[in-house]
Amino acid sequence: MKPYPEMTVEELNIELSQLKAQYKRVQALGMHLDMSRGKPCQEQLDLSMGMMDVLDSSSDLTCEDGTDCRNYGQLTGIHEARELLGDMMENNPKDIIIYGNSSLNVMFDTISRVWTHGVMGNTPWCRLPEVKFLCPVPGYDRHFAITEYFGIKMVPVPMTPTGPDMDIVEKLVREDETIKGIWCVPKYSNPQGISYSDETVRRFARLEPAAPDFRIFWDNAYGMHHLYDHKQDYLIEILAECKRAGNPDMVYKFASTSKITFPGSGIAAIATSPNNMEDFVSYLKHQTIGHDKVNQLRHVRFFGDIHGMVEHMRKHADIIRPKFEAVEATLERDLAGLDAGTWTCPLGGYFIMFDSLPGCAKDIVALAKKAGVTMTPAGATWPYGKDPNDSNIRIAPTYPCLSDLKTAMEIFTLCVRIVSAKKLLAEKQAAA
Amino acid sequence: MKPYPEMTVEELNIELSQLKAQYKRVQALGMHLDMSRGKPCQEQLDLSMGMMDVLDSSSDLTCEDGTDCRNYGQLTGIHEARELLGDMMENNPKDIIIYGNSSLNVMFDTISRVWTHGVMGNTPWCRLPEVKFLCPVPGYDRHFAITEYFGIKMVPVPMTPTGPDMDIVEKLVREDETIKGIWCVPKYSNPQGISYSDETVRRFARLEPAAPDFRIFWDNAYGMHHLYDHKQDYLIEILAECKRAGNPDMVYKFASTSKITFPGSGIAAIATSPNNMEDFVSYLKHQTIGHDKVNQLRHVRFFGDIHGMVEHMRKHADIIRPKFEAVEATLERDLAGLDAGTWTCPLGGYFIMFDSLPGCAKDIVALAKKAGVTMTPAGATWPYGKDPNDSNIRIAPTYPCLSDLKTAMEIFTLCVRIVSAKKLLAEKQAAA
Repeated sequence: MKPYPEMTVEELNIELSQLKAQYKRVQALGMHLDMSRGKPCQEQLDLSMGMMDVLDSSSDLTCEDGTDCRNYGQLTGIHEARELLGDMMENNPKDIIIYGNSSLNVMFDTISRVWTHGVMGNTPWCRLPEVKFLCPVPGYDRHFAITEYFGIKMVPVPMTPTGPDMDIVEKLVREDETIKGIWCVPKYSNPQGISYSDETVRRFARLEPAAPDFRIFWDNAYGMHHLYDHKQDYLIEILAECKRAGNPDMVYKFASTSKITFPGSGIAAIATSPNNMEDFVSYLKHQTIGHDKVNQLRHVRFFGDIHGMVEHMRKHADIIRPKFEAVEATLERDLAGLDAGTWTCPLGGYFIMFDSLPGCAKDIVALAKKAGVTMTPAGATWPYGKDPNDSNIRIAPTYPCLSDLKTAMEIFTLCVRIVSAKKLLAEKQAAA
Repeated sequence: MKPYPEMTVEELNIELSQLKAQYKRVQALGMHLDMSRGKPCQEQLDLSMGMMDVLDSSSDLTCEDGTDCRNYGQLTGIHEARELLGDMMENNPKDIIIYGNSSLNVMFDTISRVWTHGVMGNTPWCRLPEVKFLCPVPGYDRHFAITEYFGIKMVPVPMTPTGPDMDIVEKLVREDETIKGIWCVPKYSNPQGISYSDETVRRFARLEPAAPDFRIFWDNAYGMHHLYDHKQDYLIEILAECKRAGNPDMVYKFASTSKITFPGSGIAAIATSPNNMEDFVSYLKHQTIGHDKVNQLRHVRFFGDIHGMVEHMRKHADIIRPKFEAVEATLERDLAGLDAGTWTCPLGGYFIMFDSLPGCAKDIVALAKKAGVTMTPAGATWPYGKDPNDSNIRIAPTYPCLSDLKTAMEIFTLCVRIVSAKKLLAEKQAAA
């Protein structure tokens, strides 16, 4: 088929009438498919059911150092959990704090603490006239929601295939001391599924921020989430790189087992420098007596060690790889050569990113919704929900079953074609 | 024996030399006993080991409304957990939010959120020149640590046998709009073990604070923690009472199962009015996608219902009642009639409060420490750790085994007698 932009008004009209007839048939099916969020599917959750058996009433719930995990204490987590998460995050256990069930919660609390008490003795951000964050775009809506909630001004920075545009990042942090942080999903990014290149990570570690309390919020949510056994992205470990570059305190690194075991009942962690650790503990000791150590022990006993976790992640990959491939196959089959959009083909993570023709994303998502397919709202990948091109759509393939997903993607590509053809037609008619 | 204050210099000297000889013998034993914190003992923890069996790999982890507890979602908690905690807190499930493993964490987060975002649209406290909290004294050190961390000025209010001195509370909150809150442990209070009288609760509900964003922080930590089956304190439910008094939004009520199941792995909750709930959810939705629902389900399946929890609390009482009685018996045996201190005999909770002669508490705790008995630091029960009378000591009987506890209390009363006799002797010699 001809690319849409090259079609005549007549050809577009014919195409549209066919597509609309097809849409009516699809709509009549009364589908209800939700692919709005990056949630594991039931089959994935079932992989961790063994975790419900590793502790029972006959278990010794004492950890290596003799602490009874059932009682109070161990503010920074039990040693064996710090070791496991350390191996997972590629950091020293002593640089790890284990938290509760949500790394998002740790990020929120971190912003909140810095807002009220500042970073390592610097002025609390609530006392500053303006605080800005760099937001690589498209990015993760829940990151943007946190900074928006605190009234932090978000400055979009374009993403490239190797990470954020580092020329812009370097210039902005060097010149503007009101820029206090940047949100990063460095591996299998949300929503692109790309990973920061070696050069990008090295340039991050060598940033020269004007603000002494500038911090990189490094949300390594998908560090273990490869789709393939051999084709894998590699990400340079940022803490070590920052230390080498003489910027040991510049990064807060977050991770969790939410998409490894259970999203509601995993364990979260931060890895950071000793100075930052001290800063974290200074508020943590007032906030809690300790996080859920029984659940930490449950995770350790379930995985045994990092090799157990890697094996476990292979099983996840086996379940979701076909879904990613199905999405990509449908996009390829229905849209290749039409010049009606582009998409990513990631090697890991939870998302595929679709970019439509400018000004089409909202209409595509709305049209899909009317046919029973719920996508992540258009605009969600941008700060304040405002995508200036109205082109970016996040596709989350993991949750629906394979057959539903295929149906949903067929409806999606149909909607892309309808909205694109309509838009091009209107443009051609206006130009005529 | 004669009361110490009535003894002559000579009598005190004889008493002291006997006591010191006894102390030397005790010190030679090289004891190591920790009664510094209100921790359950191992036997108590063992009561909840059945909770490790209620969920296994064959369990259906779906809750009543069809939610898969393993996955994301259910921001305010699963319904059946809200029902159980609602029964425990005597509140409607719809007025309950279930949190993670720590009510202290909920209190910290609440202060933090109000600090950054204010109460229901009022000015964030961080923007005010001064914020004060009323602190009934003696009180709970971790409460005071939170308010101190946020730079909130703490105003002590004396406790009476029926709760805080309400004449003072009423006057201060009515006259001073910088007073934004009060910390309360209304039932089996920390450290006295007393419960607020009906009149006290009614007067709380009828407060007329100058500050529209004044809130009562009602930490009902020991609501279920009776020592006896029939002799029990009764506390009027504050939310209902506030609603009746026309002050529905004035109270945040906190509780948890930390001292019911496992201190590290329980579930915490807040109960509050619909307006406050909305306020809480407005930040919670940015802070997390949801708390640990598997653990919520585990608690529900373990207890079945509130009757199951009440039965469970009877078993706790059977373990710790003899400890409270042993402490009281030793205090009575060694100190009755000496006029060297007073103590409480609570019907529940985790603590017994001891009041020494003025100016003796620090020395008593230090002397006990030298003989191997660690008490809660003197002063801890006062804001900023400063007990103006240096007389208040918190006794935590639950953690040590009964025989250790008896030994520890014998050392404690010995130290009380030594320090009191020394002090009286010095006074008499100075006066001579």
